[in-house]
Amino acid sequence: MPVQVDVGELVAQAADGVPRAIARLISLVEDAHPQLREVAAALTPHTGRARLIGLTGPPGVGKSTSTSMLITALRAAGKRVGVLAIDPSSPFSGGALLGDRVRMSEHATDTGVFIRSMATRGHLGGLAWATPQAVRVLDAAGFDIVLIETVGVGQSEVDVVRLADTTVVLLAPGMGDGIQAAKAGVLEIADVFVVNKADREGADATVRELKQMIAMGRREMRGPSWRQPIVRTVASRDEGAEDVLKVLDEHHDWLTAEGELTRRRATRAAGEIEAIALQRLRAELVDLRGGDRLAELADAVAGRELDPYAAAERLIDDLRA
Amino acid sequence: MPVQVDVGELVAQAADGVPRAIARLISLVEDAHPQLREVAAALTPHTGRARLIGLTGPPGVGKSTSTSMLITALRAAGKRVGVLAIDPSSPFSGGALLGDRVRMSEHATDTGVFIRSMATRGHLGGLAWATPQAVRVLDAAGFDIVLIETVGVGQSEVDVVRLADTTVVLLAPGMGDGIQAAKAGVLEIADVFVVNKADREGADATVRELKQMIAMGRREMRGPSWRQPIVRTVASRDEGAEDVLKVLDEHHDWLTAEGELTRRRATRAAGEIEAIALQRLRAELVDLRGGDRLAELADAVAGRELDPYAAAERLIDDLRA
Repeated sequence: MPVQVDVGELVAQAADGVPRAIARLISLVEDAHPQLREVAAALTPHTGRARLIGLTGPPGVGKSTSTSMLITALRAAGKRVGVLAIDPSSPFSGGALLGDRVRMSEHATDTGVFIRSMATRGHLGGLAWATPQAVRVLDAAGFDIVLIETVGVGQSEVDVVRLADTTVVLLAPGMGDGIQAAKAGVLEIADVFVVNKADREGADATVRELKQMIAMGRREMRGPSWRQPIVRTVASRDEGAEDVLKVLDEHHDWLTAEGELTRRRATRAAGEIEAIALQRLRAELVDLRGGDRLAELADAVAGRELDPYAAAERLIDDLRA
Repeated sequence: MPVQVDVGELVAQAADGVPRAIARLISLVEDAHPQLREVAAALTPHTGRARLIGLTGPPGVGKSTSTSMLITALRAAGKRVGVLAIDPSSPFSGGALLGDRVRMSEHATDTGVFIRSMATRGHLGGLAWATPQAVRVLDAAGFDIVLIETVGVGQSEVDVVRLADTTVVLLAPGMGDGIQAAKAGVLEIADVFVVNKADREGADATVRELKQMIAMGRREMRGPSWRQPIVRTVASRDEGAEDVLKVLDEHHDWLTAEGELTRRRATRAAGEIEAIALQRLRAELVDLRGGDRLAELADAVAGRELDPYAAAERLIDDLRA
């Protein structure tokens, strides 16, 4: 039985930046607490200030180290930073990611920083539904920047990154064919490229390859007027952080000037509304007659008395009845 | 404008094993062709015979080679084999997987084998919706075995494997901490473990580790009466295929004897019905007043006049109106 929560008090504390209240609210989101509806309403007046930055890239490029570097630089610039680290939670990947997280422990005692891991496993539609609500909590808690970091291996992670105002794609030298193969997808989601480990052999080649990709992409796509910049970093030595912050600011200015920020946030809101509505409809479908209706139809489909489309139609009819 | 299709003729041809008809039907599924409802109804009487085997494991364990080995062994046993190779289609992974597929070309001229890659990218809820329909096509086409191979990196891929009657998890020596980290998830989804590259150093250690995991898991979970077997293979040299087929048969016998096959297929059907229903409801939600309703609500949420839950409620109200 979920505990009844004093939502007003909890949101007030979170808006004051009390870490325990923030953590508690995100847990309510993750657990799909029955008072979530109330939480969302209470958070709304406090939201809309944070800048949302998505950070993704293939495994091994140094995402956690880069996140940590950016936190340090943003703190030095006086910004409060909330981080959502999205774990795709494949049965095959849990350990390595958790290990990486340890790197961020240097920020553990800084109250201007809040870091939270979220697992996609078990959530309907990955994090389509839970992540934006968690972002909303951090926004309401007054963080100037909310970083969403994902390992970028699956569709749901990519969707999460698409929630951001600005998406940073991290790459590293020596990925070889990787970049070429990744071309279409990467061009599609990146606002900013960061080539990390830029002190390693092959960094120049990686940057050159990226430049070609960007140039070709622009011809093919006749995209918007933003030209994706490429920044070099060595996150393990905190090198290049200022350059990243600079292009992030430039992108933010561009978003604002072009009206693109408003468009992106409306798109995000549409996705959010849709995900919540589907989540609710799904709960109703599965629960028709205490679940008996779906079980009955499933038996009929498994027994080939009914095809699944006909069964789905009957289920929807019952939902509407 | 989608072309009008003679569904009856196409399904009759597919049921006769005509590769072009099978391929065409799977394309209709992938493209969410308007006649899909009709296709599903026409396929249903032909389905229910195939055994569904899921094959997954972390990158680098030799999934494609193992699939190829199993195809060869199943063909030698007189079985017709359909393969769905699921690509998670991350922007960072496309190329490598496509490369792997080339390995399977040795079966290209065998009409008793049908291999098809499916991309998860762009599909709502990953492949929750399209994969079971593609499986249905292969089942109706009279394949004795349908292998579903996934790279197993994200939730949607794991969900797909859960569609199978029997799930084979592939591992390889030298994954070190990987197996420990993967423990919970792997135990949850595996019916059969295969340790591939068993000629390499560390194979004994991997098998030992797995045995411990299985023993511990059984204590913790008080699971069903099936004891997950561990089979060693060297897929690159076709070694161990017979052992894998043997445990697959044993698992199938167990599924049948325990009534578990019926239960799993009903669960699969329930998931399928739910996915189709949600897909349809989603289309209706997004399309209310030609999309204007969602856009309007999204603007209100982005402008903080409304919280996303309240907006979702209004959207659902309109759907019901």
